[in-house]
Amino acid sequence: MNSNCLKVIVLVAMIVAGMSLPVQSQTVQADSIQLKRIYDEILLHARAYKNLEELSLEIGPRLSGSPQAEKSVAWTMKKMKEAGADTVWLQEVTIPHWVRGEKEKGMIIPSGGKKQTVPTCALGMSVATPKEGITAEVVEVYDFDQLKKLGEEKIKGKIVFYNHPFDQRFVNTFHAYGEAGRYRYIGAGEAARYGAVASIIRSLSSSDNDYPHTGAQRYRDSVPQIPCAAISTNAANLLSDLLKTDPKARFFLQQSCQMLDSVKSYNVIGEIRGSEHPEELVLAGGHLDSWDLAQGAHDDGAGIVQSIEILRTLKALNIQPKRTVRVVAFMNEENGLCGGREYALQARKKNEKHVAAMESDAGGFTPTGFGLNMSDSAKAKIGQWKNLFLPYNVWDWSGEEDGADISPLTDGGKVPGIGLYVDSQRYFEIHHAATDTFDQVNKRELHLGAAAMTALVYLLSLHGL
Amino acid sequence: MNSNCLKVIVLVAMIVAGMSLPVQSQTVQADSIQLKRIYDEILLHARAYKNLEELSLEIGPRLSGSPQAEKSVAWTMKKMKEAGADTVWLQEVTIPHWVRGEKEKGMIIPSGGKKQTVPTCALGMSVATPKEGITAEVVEVYDFDQLKKLGEEKIKGKIVFYNHPFDQRFVNTFHAYGEAGRYRYIGAGEAARYGAVASIIRSLSSSDNDYPHTGAQRYRDSVPQIPCAAISTNAANLLSDLLKTDPKARFFLQQSCQMLDSVKSYNVIGEIRGSEHPEELVLAGGHLDSWDLAQGAHDDGAGIVQSIEILRTLKALNIQPKRTVRVVAFMNEENGLCGGREYALQARKKNEKHVAAMESDAGGFTPTGFGLNMSDSAKAKIGQWKNLFLPYNVWDWSGEEDGADISPLTDGGKVPGIGLYVDSQRYFEIHHAATDTFDQVNKRELHLGAAAMTALVYLLSLHGL
Repeated sequence: MNSNCLKVIVLVAMIVAGMSLPVQSQTVQADSIQLKRIYDEILLHARAYKNLEELSLEIGPRLSGSPQAEKSVAWTMKKMKEAGADTVWLQEVTIPHWVRGEKEKGMIIPSGGKKQTVPTCALGMSVATPKEGITAEVVEVYDFDQLKKLGEEKIKGKIVFYNHPFDQRFVNTFHAYGEAGRYRYIGAGEAARYGAVASIIRSLSSSDNDYPHTGAQRYRDSVPQIPCAAISTNAANLLSDLLKTDPKARFFLQQSCQMLDSVKSYNVIGEIRGSEHPEELVLAGGHLDSWDLAQGAHDDGAGIVQSIEILRTLKALNIQPKRTVRVVAFMNEENGLCGGREYALQARKKNEKHVAAMESDAGGFTPTGFGLNMSDSAKAKIGQWKNLFLPYNVWDWSGEEDGADISPLTDGGKVPGIGLYVDSQRYFEIHHAATDTFDQVNKRELHLGAAAMTALVYLLSLHGL
Repeated sequence: MNSNCLKVIVLVAMIVAGMSLPVQSQTVQADSIQLKRIYDEILLHARAYKNLEELSLEIGPRLSGSPQAEKSVAWTMKKMKEAGADTVWLQEVTIPHWVRGEKEKGMIIPSGGKKQTVPTCALGMSVATPKEGITAEVVEVYDFDQLKKLGEEKIKGKIVFYNHPFDQRFVNTFHAYGEAGRYRYIGAGEAARYGAVASIIRSLSSSDNDYPHTGAQRYRDSVPQIPCAAISTNAANLLSDLLKTDPKARFFLQQSCQMLDSVKSYNVIGEIRGSEHPEELVLAGGHLDSWDLAQGAHDDGAGIVQSIEILRTLKALNIQPKRTVRVVAFMNEENGLCGGREYALQARKKNEKHVAAMESDAGGFTPTGFGLNMSDSAKAKIGQWKNLFLPYNVWDWSGEEDGADISPLTDGGKVPGIGLYVDSQRYFEIHHAATDTFDQVNKRELHLGAAAMTALVYLLSLHGL
């Protein structure tokens, strides 16, 4: 494959040999050398992996409003300072405070035979069941069309079971997630329209496993709020198989989650001020909160430590950016996006100029490219840098997703938005589940992501967009 | 990123809309549709992962000459038949039979203080120590230059310790492996030239861990054969640190490995005969043997089950290849390459015409491209197919490695050689160690590799090269 060393050596030799090269080529070569320095520094000396170990194991799950989320705010401030940020500050955000309560209980109850407890968790923002739980017959549906056809007659008083598996045919698993994700996000509201008493979903996971995968859901305003939960993919297979021969089988759901009063929390912001255009900001970030079931190592501890690594690397290499490099650890991506919204609001109030905003929130896996949510002219400018990334196996610039936290700021590309794209094969095995743990993160993969981000931030801060 | 479904739908729509398209475009579109069928079939119905589970867990380590290696020959025959090969046969190969003997013992012995046992394993083909082991002072070297400078005066009677870490700066970890690999492969012979009594190496691993990583080594004809072993990377760090303050520290090595008489074994070969040019062969394969310390799940169980998957997929899709598709499970890649050599010898004797030969032996990770070891004109022809693979994130055709087993056949590109390239970040954490186990293999990653191979085999069998 590409030998990055070799290619850079060739470039350096070309520079030494040919001082008569046109200015543009010299720029490309200088950029190439800086990118090699950045990659080498990170592959040899990055702190991101070690930081992620602390964030994952010493702080752990960081659901918005939890003590750990608050702890992570202080931790991130400290880490940004250690990394060499000129300035670090907190941006206050009001965030929802939902709590899971007691461990949920889900049971499959055949018409005859033994009840079977299955791995179950409430979806984020769900209401509780009555204290004694809900027991009802189950109506399995594949999609909303099927739900609609069944209608109130078949659904009223029952538990709707959305059994929409990941479509394995998508090479990019985010597409399968996007397709199946709507049953988690609005499934309870849709089921409630037809009188369902609760809804359960097949966990949004690409593999058959025994962990329930949580995630946000949103009720409809016009219909009752019914409890909703996820069961593991293996449990979904079991329930579905049972219903084929035992359509009267029931499900028992018991959960005590509740929405408490909103609380105050913070986005954490750290900067290295630009030497020539300090008012022009190149933003990079991820989100600090995670779901409560796991350590949030991939989602999105990875994005946080990678973003902090950008600061450390620029300082370590004594690179003074021309434009300000701003790293933001957003709060409350998972169940509200309040951090991202507040950031965008304040940026507009202050009339801040963002050259671009970048997010890493697809897991700490091997980077493959960047999604570009921006004008064609901005894409064309970034396009000139693509070859610089090929020695590092960063090749795919065809996507257009940037990131949830920065989306209120980038707003359809008004501020150029950039998303770090990574190999997506393993992400949805552990996403939002108890298995999103530090030991699932590979050091080199994580660091290559940090390096790709730092490289592009460097180019943006040097050349603008 | 790329939505493969969408792209193929667009192509189909184009075909329906435009029957006036030039023949070449129609060919591209037909190929694109077949590739989508192949990927869908494999992502939905592949047997490769299930087969790998059997090979890894039910048969396990398959060192040449071991009962498990023989068991794997019969297993592979059965699997090729089940997959739908027209013909399956065995090609006899004489292979070396080296055995590890008793569990090795390695101990760090400080001048004062307590001995410490460290994870140690003999390198493949090493001789034994005397029964009571060898205890000697340790000379640490980074490379052969340093060894040479120290010379006989400093080395005679001592244990040479090659502590050459992986260079983390290589993005492709195979390059770091290639660089550090020589100390494993010829280090004992070089050390023996200066009178060393044994040599130990820092395990060839990209991470700090507690497992010794074995692998082949080769003695020099002109010097004594001394025992050689690998210690874990963590042990290497420990020993190196100790030597800084305690240069008289000693190492104890005890191993009872030995070379037995050569034995007979087999390459396993399965074919689907071509309908138009049955005499033209498109070969794909991997190697059936593994090191004895682990299950050989990635190395190279993955390559075996992926190759078998090619046969199954063609049959399942009712694709009758125009040229013969031949799958070969080679014996004895790890410590002899006798299978690959015998195959090439027989192919030449029979004057067989190979259109191309492909190997998967880089682990069952997400495929990124193919290495092309062939003439420029052959590269140009394959180059026309590159865009067909982009929807599947197979993008890198810049490499030139094909594979060890097929190298005697491809012989510098005389027969076009092709190597499956995969994301290499995790491979050398587990390579040749007890940690190369089935649970380290991701189902989708493995299957995407099988799909990429099947797709390219399909194109080669249809269009030739």
